[in-house]
Amino acid sequence: MSDAATFAPPAAPANAELSAMFRPRAIAVLGASGRVGNPFARPLTYLVEHGFAGEIYPVNPGYRTLGGLTCYPSLEDLPGEVDLVLMLVSATEVVRQLPAVAAAGAKAAVVFASGFAETGPDGQALQDELVRQARLHGVRLLGPNCQGLVAVHDHVVASFTAALELGVPEPGNIAYIGQSGAVGGSIFSLARERGLRIGTWASTGNQADLGATEIANFLVEDPRIEVLTMYLESPVPGDEFNRLTARAAELGKSVLVLRSAVSGSGARAATSHTGAIIGDHAAFTAMCRERGVVQADDVEDFIATAHALSVLPRSGGDRLGIITTSGGAGSLAADQAEACGMTVDDLTEPVRRRLSEVVPDFGAVSNPVDVTAQMFKANETDGFIAVCDEVLADPTVDSVLVVLTMVTGDLATSMAHGLCGLWARATKPVAVVWLAARQQTAEAREILRAAGMPVFDSPRVGVGVLHALATSAPPPSRSFSQVTASDMTVADVLSGLHGGVITEHEGAEVLTALGISRPEERLVGSADQAADAARALGGPLVLKIQSPEVLHKTERGGVRLGVGVDEAAAVYDEIVVRFAAEGATDVLVQQQVGEGPELLVGITNTEPGFPPLLTVGMGGVTTELYQDTTTRLAPVDARTAMEMVLELKAAPLLTGFRGQAGHALNAAADAIATLSRLAVLVGDRLVELEVNPLRLVDAGERAIALDFLLRLGDPSGTTEETTA
Amino acid sequence: MSDAATFAPPAAPANAELSAMFRPRAIAVLGASGRVGNPFARPLTYLVEHGFAGEIYPVNPGYRTLGGLTCYPSLEDLPGEVDLVLMLVSATEVVRQLPAVAAAGAKAAVVFASGFAETGPDGQALQDELVRQARLHGVRLLGPNCQGLVAVHDHVVASFTAALELGVPEPGNIAYIGQSGAVGGSIFSLARERGLRIGTWASTGNQADLGATEIANFLVEDPRIEVLTMYLESPVPGDEFNRLTARAAELGKSVLVLRSAVSGSGARAATSHTGAIIGDHAAFTAMCRERGVVQADDVEDFIATAHALSVLPRSGGDRLGIITTSGGAGSLAADQAEACGMTVDDLTEPVRRRLSEVVPDFGAVSNPVDVTAQMFKANETDGFIAVCDEVLADPTVDSVLVVLTMVTGDLATSMAHGLCGLWARATKPVAVVWLAARQQTAEAREILRAAGMPVFDSPRVGVGVLHALATSAPPPSRSFSQVTASDMTVADVLSGLHGGVITEHEGAEVLTALGISRPEERLVGSADQAADAARALGGPLVLKIQSPEVLHKTERGGVRLGVGVDEAAAVYDEIVVRFAAEGATDVLVQQQVGEGPELLVGITNTEPGFPPLLTVGMGGVTTELYQDTTTRLAPVDARTAMEMVLELKAAPLLTGFRGQAGHALNAAADAIATLSRLAVLVGDRLVELEVNPLRLVDAGERAIALDFLLRLGDPSGTTEETTA
Repeated sequence: MSDAATFAPPAAPANAELSAMFRPRAIAVLGASGRVGNPFARPLTYLVEHGFAGEIYPVNPGYRTLGGLTCYPSLEDLPGEVDLVLMLVSATEVVRQLPAVAAAGAKAAVVFASGFAETGPDGQALQDELVRQARLHGVRLLGPNCQGLVAVHDHVVASFTAALELGVPEPGNIAYIGQSGAVGGSIFSLARERGLRIGTWASTGNQADLGATEIANFLVEDPRIEVLTMYLESPVPGDEFNRLTARAAELGKSVLVLRSAVSGSGARAATSHTGAIIGDHAAFTAMCRERGVVQADDVEDFIATAHALSVLPRSGGDRLGIITTSGGAGSLAADQAEACGMTVDDLTEPVRRRLSEVVPDFGAVSNPVDVTAQMFKANETDGFIAVCDEVLADPTVDSVLVVLTMVTGDLATSMAHGLCGLWARATKPVAVVWLAARQQTAEAREILRAAGMPVFDSPRVGVGVLHALATSAPPPSRSFSQVTASDMTVADVLSGLHGGVITEHEGAEVLTALGISRPEERLVGSADQAADAARALGGPLVLKIQSPEVLHKTERGGVRLGVGVDEAAAVYDEIVVRFAAEGATDVLVQQQVGEGPELLVGITNTEPGFPPLLTVGMGGVTTELYQDTTTRLAPVDARTAMEMVLELKAAPLLTGFRGQAGHALNAAADAIATLSRLAVLVGDRLVELEVNPLRLVDAGERAIALDFLLRLGDPSGTTEETTA
Repeated sequence: MSDAATFAPPAAPANAELSAMFRPRAIAVLGASGRVGNPFARPLTYLVEHGFAGEIYPVNPGYRTLGGLTCYPSLEDLPGEVDLVLMLVSATEVVRQLPAVAAAGAKAAVVFASGFAETGPDGQALQDELVRQARLHGVRLLGPNCQGLVAVHDHVVASFTAALELGVPEPGNIAYIGQSGAVGGSIFSLARERGLRIGTWASTGNQADLGATEIANFLVEDPRIEVLTMYLESPVPGDEFNRLTARAAELGKSVLVLRSAVSGSGARAATSHTGAIIGDHAAFTAMCRERGVVQADDVEDFIATAHALSVLPRSGGDRLGIITTSGGAGSLAADQAEACGMTVDDLTEPVRRRLSEVVPDFGAVSNPVDVTAQMFKANETDGFIAVCDEVLADPTVDSVLVVLTMVTGDLATSMAHGLCGLWARATKPVAVVWLAARQQTAEAREILRAAGMPVFDSPRVGVGVLHALATSAPPPSRSFSQVTASDMTVADVLSGLHGGVITEHEGAEVLTALGISRPEERLVGSADQAADAARALGGPLVLKIQSPEVLHKTERGGVRLGVGVDEAAAVYDEIVVRFAAEGATDVLVQQQVGEGPELLVGITNTEPGFPPLLTVGMGGVTTELYQDTTTRLAPVDARTAMEMVLELKAAPLLTGFRGQAGHALNAAADAIATLSRLAVLVGDRLVELEVNPLRLVDAGERAIALDFLLRLGDPSGTTEETTA
């Protein structure tokens, strides 16, 4: 049973090396250049200019001094130990110098050079050698092919990203970590423009050694960092992401991710229908949901949301109050709120009454509150801010969106001061959208920028960040089912199973041990046995081919429903002849159970290191056509299983629709929860597990597993490859 | 038969009054103020400063001169005729002065004053009187409660919107018309900031007389205007929008709309399931689709799309080429493209070969093309622009997105010049997303701004505008079914029908006249008759209550399936007893037809003046649960009807899914097309029409209407109210 599967994250990694990297006491700059305009001149300059407090040792045989500091011919000549070496030398030289890096006392190095894995097989070989050397000498690496790091609080400016042309920012509570140096530079640059305060920034490049999630696991412990933002390109290591998000939730810190498509979509083996339905990132997304991690769609949303998370309080829910200077703008904002699932409900009566005393008659004291331009006749904004305070105080409002239109000039300046006061008082988030050119609101925007407060450019973005502040609240911890004595029996049964596909009949013992209902059945190997079994079970019957070689047996004609006792022998023959090529002769003869709605319950191991992913959908073709499924990380308890069933768009078909009687769902929820626990018991060997369909009979009082598919890795514990 | 329903737009309105408003030869400014800071001082100042070429007559008894012009005590004292009066006086004074406005020769007036309908019943009465006076005196009005208009080409600056604080813009090919002065001002201001060139701007306020669509119909004829952009708040008059969009398509001009939610959603009467399923704006959206009108979601998208439409060529399709300086940024752009349905396919082999000669090895010559930062080692951008030219020339690429990351400083300036050249040459659209702070790209952005070219802030927006440029291409004109001789029979039958709900049996003659298959049936009024009918028809049978009072008869137990001949009498009694309250005794006895998949075909008149809206969905509960429907404006031909069926997510259930046999769809498509023609024949009397289900039998060779609902307005032609 893996740690990831039980949701108990492994302990945080020892962080001496990462401390050496992000909070070094002394730094050597190997290959520092003295040429103006050379990017390799920048890190030394930045370190000196921005007041790194420890020793800085330039290393370059071509100089005696650099930037006012003594320059040393080689790492061997340094007068003292360093924690970190910035390696501004070529790819081959980096590998050659690594022993010297370790000898200089460094536990960490930043490798800027390209020419490694990104260039092809030769580069990959060089990178492998680099990692080998690093492991051998106990040095952790950032890069290669990266743009380094900036740790603003500690004055470590170890990068030459062009974003630093704007100077080093004021220290803030945001950490950014991403692979792509270009995207990282863009986000750094745009963040500066928008007034976000980044405290730590790192570009991980090829991630030959340190990856973004491992660094995030280190930075989450830094009390100066409250918002961890990441741009993730490559597959995300599930165990590290699990640890990170659990720890962030525990500490009340926010995690924001922008994930670009991982290539190879569709490469996953899809034996089960579940595999065909759920997306490549489904487990990642499920973990984000579970842990309140915000996923951004786009660079703009990413920056806006990071800003909001860094300066605004979290919100208790999705009930939005809108205050605007224009009915039209308020209406547009309400449309956006509806589109993302927020509610814009009436305010409470006392609030409406107080608002009606100040808002002009032709404005609106409902929600959105439209104060109209009349509110500013006296050229002051106190009345407007008072309206905001009223709406904020409404107990039915979780967050407030202020949408300003052409409030410009002096009035804008007054508004900016008012908003700063409002922000300082508010215990709920207030987002401001200002629909006026920067030239007409420059002073106001500068006041807000200096206060660190965001101004958003459109209702969509303003609404989006408030929605994010609601979803990012740490979710209540959930209780997991305990492993019971009977589960241990199941574990015994499982340990006896071979790798590969386990047929329905082979898996029967597992389901029985778990207490999941199945039809009465017999496995037969001949027409005569089929006839005997049919007489013993009574009709109507279902006959199904059983072979690990035969997948999608229904589509291939390997399943026959409604077979009478007398027909069983003939049907047996009809079925097996279809599978002569596979030599399959085993047929399962089952009692056919009564009619009832059906569910699909699937569990897959999609991304390495992530807990198994539980998928529930309606049985039958509609699930696939409409992608009507819900997912959670396994295991879930029966309450969560019930919640999943009720989240299906087709749930009314179960609970009663258009005058049809509803079905009890407890039995189904219990079966789903039990199957999710089974996934945990199977552990790392699990490739996929599916009950399709789980049929509800007796008005839902019983849930019967009518088919069962299990694919396992080898008993040794080696997981079967899930990708082609 | 209304014009709107046949899609032949009525002729454009006479435009002498609108010419007087937007291209006046002389203007009087009634109530012009001389006080600095008074908004009512602004229009006169603007007119003078911005070189209005005709006579300008300030009118105010308090001044002898204003702004260097002779000021007249009253409109009666003007020395010459005017075309337009700007009315900067109070609400009551506006009404009082209207005869004098007409007497001064003006055919148009702008009423800025508030205090009309927006303030309540008294204001509404005053507004009614204003309109009465205007009609009486032949004066067209903009407003009241509006911010006026700006016609840049003709130097008519008749507004005091704060957006004009930035000065009057250079003339451009964009018209903006919207109701809300605040939103209009914001868009004007933001457009200036972004470098959009607006030629004509108008705020229509309360729209007591002129509405946004009528003005758009005037401006679409202006050869200097190529892009019509509108912010629409209130219900849109379908006939005017029909005319506008048809004319714009004819002239090859673009229409862009931002529509905010019309309140009263859910207020529509929903007798049919179709009514319950489709949205409030479905007919509007269908017309936008039909005419290539772009609908923006948000202010930011609206401005970006307007910009793109005004300066970039239209695109022939959704095949996107992406060129980027960063693999990560390219990947994010490709994600966005996929999300909005664009394709990012491999480039053709010759293009890839030529690219591989210039792009570094570790970049990518597939799509997205990643040139990497290496491309700029020589500090020049010619190579990059050459790559863009290559991709543009690829015949499999419809439009190109350039995503720049940290290209800054001198390199940025060089890039800006290169992009201007690229734009000048390109016959396909090129959108640029630049992910770097404005401070680091200021000179480059200024070069692009001066050239009128847009730069977008995020991949989402850049991809969005290119998608809009593909959808805004004028669609090929479609052929409509002709009204046939048999249709005239149908029209005769229809003219005999009463208003209100037409029962299935009453409507049978209509369907029969149209040649749509129905089950054999008899209408009975007693148990004995039921028994007779059953014997004559043969079982199994369906019995259905028939009464205009009884809607949703299935849910109320008014329908019984699978009734045997001997049971008919008893079932008749069981049914009618349920509807004793309504006194319903008519029951339809029908032959039950064979099993088969079912469609829902609904036609509704949702928004006044729009053609009827045809909705097709799968029959049964899933349509409602999954909102799986497609819509078009009626009528459609069989080819389009087929296209609609195939667009359903559930279409595989009809065409063959998971080894199930498919069904022919010609009969269904014919029936759908015929029903859409019926909607046109019914004309303005149509409230809603629904065949639910239309069952496909005999492998789809026959499509049988198993139920039929028709709601009509009075025969007089008065349409029944469709809103509660």
